[in-house]
Amino acid sequence: MTKTIDVAIFGAAGYGGQELLRLLPAHPHFRPVAVTSQRYAGKGVEEILPQLEGFFPDLRFTRPEAPLPEGCAAAFLATPHGVSQQLFATLHERCPEMDVVDLSGDHRLKDKEVFYSVYGAEHRFPDKAKDFAYGLPETNREAIRQTAFVANPGCFATGAILALAPLAEQGLLEGDVTLAQTTGSSGSGAEPKSGTHHPERAQDMRAYKVLSHQHQPEIVQELSRLGLARLEFDLAMVPQSGPFSRGIFTVAHARLPADVDAAEIYARRYGPEPFVRLRRDTPSLRHVARTNFCDVSVHQRGRRVVVLTAIDNLGKGMAGQAIQNMNILFGLDETTGLLAPGANP
Amino acid sequence: MTKTIDVAIFGAAGYGGQELLRLLPAHPHFRPVAVTSQRYAGKGVEEILPQLEGFFPDLRFTRPEAPLPEGCAAAFLATPHGVSQQLFATLHERCPEMDVVDLSGDHRLKDKEVFYSVYGAEHRFPDKAKDFAYGLPETNREAIRQTAFVANPGCFATGAILALAPLAEQGLLEGDVTLAQTTGSSGSGAEPKSGTHHPERAQDMRAYKVLSHQHQPEIVQELSRLGLARLEFDLAMVPQSGPFSRGIFTVAHARLPADVDAAEIYARRYGPEPFVRLRRDTPSLRHVARTNFCDVSVHQRGRRVVVLTAIDNLGKGMAGQAIQNMNILFGLDETTGLLAPGANP
Amino acid sequence: MTKTIDVAIFGAAGYGGQELLRLLPAHPHFRPVAVTSQRYAGKGVEEILPQLEGFFPDLRFTRPEAPLPEGCAAAFLATPHGVSQQLFATLHERCPEMDVVDLSGDHRLKDKEVFYSVYGAEHRFPDKAKDFAYGLPETNREAIRQTAFVANPGCFATGAILALAPLAEQGLLEGDVTLAQTTGSSGSGAEPKSGTHHPERAQDMRAYKVLSHQHQPEIVQELSRLGLARLEFDLAMVPQSGPFSRGIFTVAHARLPADVDAAEIYARRYGPEPFVRLRRDTPSLRHVARTNFCDVSVHQRGRRVVVLTAIDNLGKGMAGQAIQNMNILFGLDETTGLLAPGANP
Amino acid sequence: MTKTIDVAIFGAAGYGGQELLRLLPAHPHFRPVAVTSQRYAGKGVEEILPQLEGFFPDLRFTRPEAPLPEGCAAAFLATPHGVSQQLFATLHERCPEMDVVDLSGDHRLKDKEVFYSVYGAEHRFPDKAKDFAYGLPETNREAIRQTAFVANPGCFATGAILALAPLAEQGLLEGDVTLAQTTGSSGSGAEPKSGTHHPERAQDMRAYKVLSHQHQPEIVQELSRLGLARLEFDLAMVPQSGPFSRGIFTVAHARLPADVDAAEIYARRYGPEPFVRLRRDTPSLRHVARTNFCDVSVHQRGRRVVVLTAIDNLGKGMAGQAIQNMNILFGLDETTGLLAPGANP
Repeated sequence: MTKTIDVAIFGAAGYGGQELLRLLPAHPHFRPVAVTSQRYAGKGVEEILPQLEGFFPDLRFTRPEAPLPEGCAAAFLATPHGVSQQLFATLHERCPEMDVVDLSGDHRLKDKEVFYSVYGAEHRFPDKAKDFAYGLPETNREAIRQTAFVANPGCFATGAILALAPLAEQGLLEGDVTLAQTTGSSGSGAEPKSGTHHPERAQDMRAYKVLSHQHQPEIVQELSRLGLARLEFDLAMVPQSGPFSRGIFTVAHARLPADVDAAEIYARRYGPEPFVRLRRDTPSLRHVARTNFCDVSVHQRGRRVVVLTAIDNLGKGMAGQAIQNMNILFGLDETTGLLAPGANP
Repeated sequence: MTKTIDVAIFGAAGYGGQELLRLLPAHPHFRPVAVTSQRYAGKGVEEILPQLEGFFPDLRFTRPEAPLPEGCAAAFLATPHGVSQQLFATLHERCPEMDVVDLSGDHRLKDKEVFYSVYGAEHRFPDKAKDFAYGLPETNREAIRQTAFVANPGCFATGAILALAPLAEQGLLEGDVTLAQTTGSSGSGAEPKSGTHHPERAQDMRAYKVLSHQHQPEIVQELSRLGLARLEFDLAMVPQSGPFSRGIFTVAHARLPADVDAAEIYARRYGPEPFVRLRRDTPSLRHVARTNFCDVSVHQRGRRVVVLTAIDNLGKGMAGQAIQNMNILFGLDETTGLLAPGANP
Repeated sequence: MTKTIDVAIFGAAGYGGQELLRLLPAHPHFRPVAVTSQRYAGKGVEEILPQLEGFFPDLRFTRPEAPLPEGCAAAFLATPHGVSQQLFATLHERCPEMDVVDLSGDHRLKDKEVFYSVYGAEHRFPDKAKDFAYGLPETNREAIRQTAFVANPGCFATGAILALAPLAEQGLLEGDVTLAQTTGSSGSGAEPKSGTHHPERAQDMRAYKVLSHQHQPEIVQELSRLGLARLEFDLAMVPQSGPFSRGIFTVAHARLPADVDAAEIYARRYGPEPFVRLRRDTPSLRHVARTNFCDVSVHQRGRRVVVLTAIDNLGKGMAGQAIQNMNILFGLDETTGLLAPGANP
Repeated sequence: MTKTIDVAIFGAAGYGGQELLRLLPAHPHFRPVAVTSQRYAGKGVEEILPQLEGFFPDLRFTRPEAPLPEGCAAAFLATPHGVSQQLFATLHERCPEMDVVDLSGDHRLKDKEVFYSVYGAEHRFPDKAKDFAYGLPETNREAIRQTAFVANPGCFATGAILALAPLAEQGLLEGDVTLAQTTGSSGSGAEPKSGTHHPERAQDMRAYKVLSHQHQPEIVQELSRLGLARLEFDLAMVPQSGPFSRGIFTVAHARLPADVDAAEIYARRYGPEPFVRLRRDTPSLRHVARTNFCDVSVHQRGRRVVVLTAIDNLGKGMAGQAIQNMNILFGLDETTGLLAPGANP
């Protein structure tokens, strides 16, 4: 008989939460029993989110501070930066047995000073933060297995680390490394903003937070860890906004310190990974949209190397990866509930 | 134990075929064992359709005339108008036991003269055409159950008939009925054309085949049948092209001959239908994209009535509905493999 | 020597105002000397509106209540409904000689009760409102010439009236008339809203204010006037939202009471109009985007007639038409500063 | 009195040609008297290009080999690579006095071997090619003035060279220089292709010709020339395709060999340039669409520098720049006919 695992989703009306709710009906174990939303507390999920009509007839949004239904075994925190840390502290106190995947940036950075410089405030619960594993299964699977708390990576970070991890692990990341990444508009969240105003976004492309995006330290932290801190590289990241809803396309440029066959390294490294697909030609966002896949291609000219990755920012870059992590926490097959092909178009 | 039913997909590299292949991994019974493509015969499915990578590692396109694997019990004909009738004739001769859903327009129109006037040629196998049921389960479920051959409706026709059927059945369709429908670009198929050239389509809206679209007679035929031919209405349809990939949005205007509460009629009629969702406000394409749902709303001012429907042209308007029909042919629950929520965004 | 006419633009940071500022550099006479904005008062125009950089180096936004520069001869009111009437009253008191084009809905409706029912409040200056001419030059040129105050039509109204005016004038509008119109996202204004949130709008189509849009009474008022109030028609309008930035595409269905050649009527009627282009095939939004043109096509089947129009909602539907009206007020050639071809793509 | 200069446009039905025709009505001197098109010879311009209706009532497409009207003083070659060189040879023979701007890649590369490696064939008229000046006025104005033949730069090259020229001129380009550039779909031309099929392009992003795009040698050639060949840099370019119609967004990463203030260098260098606008924040494609502007921003962290540029690929990247060059050839003010603000949205 199929085991049911009751889960709570905090911040369930945001895009991360909505995507979790979209994915969970196909999951044989995880069942959302509590969904919180400050704004919509008291309303029915199907009333607020019509795309879900027919799937959660009895589920209503509650306030985040409402007690969880008995037997709730895990929580996804799809809450904003700053909110998650407080939420986790409270939750952990009340339900110490509960497994948690935090989709925010609150528990990703290990270094307190880096955290402060990125988020402009000290972490209020630094002791608790230490117990979190950085939740990129492809690079940190073992650590995730051994904890109950996962810090789900940033979407840009997921695209960038998957592009560069095989080089970092081989000690092949050196000197100037450049990233030009482009995100879809859903990366800005469900709240309308000037940057996602349709008339101006629909045919536009622009850049923002040049060399200062909050995911950059996260990328550096993880690549350095993979390189056992022996690497000397200087990473420069340019985030761009594209006129599409979903996806992050990453262009990574590096120079190899040695005369190696990069394609061969990636093939070997990613061959066994269920969610990384190495492409002969080049990846396309449309092939990974609404999936948990990361498509990768590697291009080399002498010692110059270019790696391209394509992910869905709400999929592998957010909710899909959160479920992948939760699967690991519960000892399930990592791909449970996540294997669905992309659509074309 | 789960029963496996082997199916063939003819024209599998088109958008109808690709969508069938996207949906079938989630279907517990139907398994594609043969996929045909004139252009790609000999190539691997995953090589040509990268969004499917990981799902059909051993499936290769074959020529349509290649013999089917033994035990193949059903066929989807996702082939163009004109091709399907020939294909069906051959197939039916070779494998008379095989169940068939034809996604083309070849077997939808019952009247030979109407068929000729629409498609500009006589049907080559009129005797065989008679055995086909018109495959809109919501209006023709019983007939589909009793046959082995289904003519899957046109996408515009699906949106229009679902908008007007409850009125037709009640004898409430009379006088001038107008349709303004807008289709996404995938309705033109997988082959690049001037009408789907991105630079010109991306921010455009236009109309085409005004009052002369081939789905109009199909709509009239089905609504007349539902009204037991007692209705006297004159239908005028304007198909439009919108700058989105998937979906058909339908605006139907009619005048009620009697003082009835249209909303109440629709609520009663569609309450039990698993794929029709009556909305309090108005439907949106984004809520039905990549699903088999049809969202409907009804608006009334005196005896003027407006009905709006939203479907995915490749879902409920094509491949989703084809699977729904095949489910019925095999005595399965009609929703098998088709219940997945929409995504937002 | 070219005469310079100094003009003020109230609400210049909205989309109507921005489009006026885009168009005026090509106008040989009108020169913006005052631009108001509640939010941006004190800021430079080029700082807030980077697309204009290089064209208005010395122009700064002021508060709407600031005194106008001496010699300012005319004003465009690109302010919201409700604000324009107050602004006009003040302005008219201070500068009774000033010509005014009001882009809002405040001065379009002649009937006080209709106005109340549409805008939910009484007009505060009904006496002043009487002096306004309805500013659709193609149907009301003479009245515009004889006044100093113009109520610029609504964007949906422009598309609809131009579709139906030739029939109304000939007494050929009768019975049920239906409109299905689709607007681009800029029609919602420069302020981000949930309906224009890019992730949700980008691939969506939906309807809103079905049978209750505020432009419907405006259309009825003008068509009735053109028909000398002898017409008996019942108009039903469905506004839709499309995933493009600019444009309104109109589908109008009617039944002709007599056996006439509609195409011939339109050709005769619109032949002399500089901004209406009768098309052999069908109009496309992309051909009129960023222009002041209205492209029209007429389709007939017996006495059923369909008329299609395409305009740019910010062009002929707003700022372009406002300049066309101002040209008339100043006795200039109506096309002055407005003749530029569309772009493809 | 305004001098009229009769010009011919070869390949006038392509996107380069259509954009020239869009821009010329606003030009006080250049008047198109001959427009050629293989496919549409004999057809009226307004019949084939409805967006131009009302502007060229008497202009018909002719075959490229048809004799030019007497007095035709200049030609734009908006013809494909390979065609332009033959066309120029013939034209130059027949009308040696004629000024020519070639929009194709045929006359951009000075080195015969580079040309061969890029275009896969030898230039058939290498002697004639020598007389062409590389047509980026901002870096090569003097040479353009002294010739009659201009090779209009590639669109990617325009965006990239304007991003890096100030560094190259100062001898500050050294080591690894990386480019990630994204083009709109109109860059693929007016002919429908699989890469510009709307259903697949509309929400996609991808890369192509990674490290092997034909514009890369053009960029290297021009930057090397500006650096007086003393520079030692290695340029790696990744072209991407974005889901918008117009524009090229460029991200250039470099490391400064010396401790200089890059922003200051750019401000000084581009201050006097009429079409380059240095932005305090970051450029956006929507601000330059349908204009001849290039918006630039410079970002520095220690000696790492990022330069961003935004152009319209059909404007400054093609037809706008071609007119700018033709203005120079005829001794006109460089901005003649090209100063129009962008639109928002």
